[in-house]
Amino acid sequence: MNKEFLTAVADRRTFYGISKESVIADDKLKSLIEHAVKHTPSAFNSQSTRVVLLLGNQHDKLWDLTIEELRKVVPAESFSSTEEKISSFKAGYGTVLFFEDNSIIESLQEQFALYKDNFPVWAQQSNGMHQFVIWTALETEGYGASLQHYNELIESNVKNEWSLPSSWKLIAQMPFGKPTGEPGVKEYLPVSDRVKVFE
Amino acid sequence: MNKEFLTAVADRRTFYGISKESVIADDKLKSLIEHAVKHTPSAFNSQSTRVVLLLGNQHDKLWDLTIEELRKVVPAESFSSTEEKISSFKAGYGTVLFFEDNSIIESLQEQFALYKDNFPVWAQQSNGMHQFVIWTALETEGYGASLQHYNELIESNVKNEWSLPSSWKLIAQMPFGKPTGEPGVKEYLPVSDRVKVFE
Repeated sequence: MNKEFLTAVADRRTFYGISKESVIADDKLKSLIEHAVKHTPSAFNSQSTRVVLLLGNQHDKLWDLTIEELRKVVPAESFSSTEEKISSFKAGYGTVLFFEDNSIIESLQEQFALYKDNFPVWAQQSNGMHQFVIWTALETEGYGASLQHYNELIESNVKNEWSLPSSWKLIAQMPFGKPTGEPGVKEYLPVSDRVKVFE
Repeated sequence: MNKEFLTAVADRRTFYGISKESVIADDKLKSLIEHAVKHTPSAFNSQSTRVVLLLGNQHDKLWDLTIEELRKVVPAESFSSTEEKISSFKAGYGTVLFFEDNSIIESLQEQFALYKDNFPVWAQQSNGMHQFVIWTALETEGYGASLQHYNELIESNVKNEWSLPSSWKLIAQMPFGKPTGEPGVKEYLPVSDRVKVFE
């Protein structure tokens, strides 16, 4: 058995407590993300997933603008716990943003009308694969990460702030940093409920 | 850098030429799939992905029933190339079927109405992660695999044949076997089109 791969899969957990301490050089961090994006598959090799890496002030800016958007919609009496949560993401070293480029999906829908309804679904599957690969790669290097979904709330501000193409759809945010604690307890369904073998 | 994980990611390719030769013991194969399903994440820890492993005659049966369904819809003049393609999947050692259990997704939609529209999307992302992990795990062991989508065509027959719950929705099929050739040439977009860094 390839222990390294399976161990990396099992060691990938959600880390909420993260700090701004760097654990690998930023050049290596960028290479790792580029490697992940290059090699993660997509149906029809569409390569429609887009990734933005925010570091330093840019990372802080993301969570500041998220707090400001939340302030508009969260009731005042529960805002302090919301603010605390967002501050815990901002406390990290950086954030990876995941997008799908809808212009590629639409172009495939025009070219292959038979699979029209499938392309958006396959794009979500491929985006999930990218999230998984980057999450796991970050954690094999010693960072801890979690996956957040403030998509509709912040998409327009995010695209303005970093001048991203209008065809990019925001799918997820992954704040990461050096872990300041252990991941929580995770519950597992019995595997026999989830995997069946016929031979 | 954790070379093993990143190498496994880069080595995961689509293998169309596969044979019935076994490369690891079936017990190890089952453990590997169970490990992948147990540890691959899902939003709200929903664990809604379901996996069926078909080996031996059961694998053959899947591709026989796929051919029979295709015979009903593919024009006679192009059927021989269709049959050849399906035979290349049947030539493999086994198939992994991927499902989502809609009953879990619907239950989350009722419990958390605010995220109603998100649960089906997150389920597709998590299903994609499971596809990626099993695909890569199979290839680190020496199998070659590809990902196929004959979902609507075969779902009802598949659920009848293996008495699977009606709430399971078929998402993908992954035939695998010992590679009989190398993967094809793959084209890559420039990574600078896909990854942006702001620091």
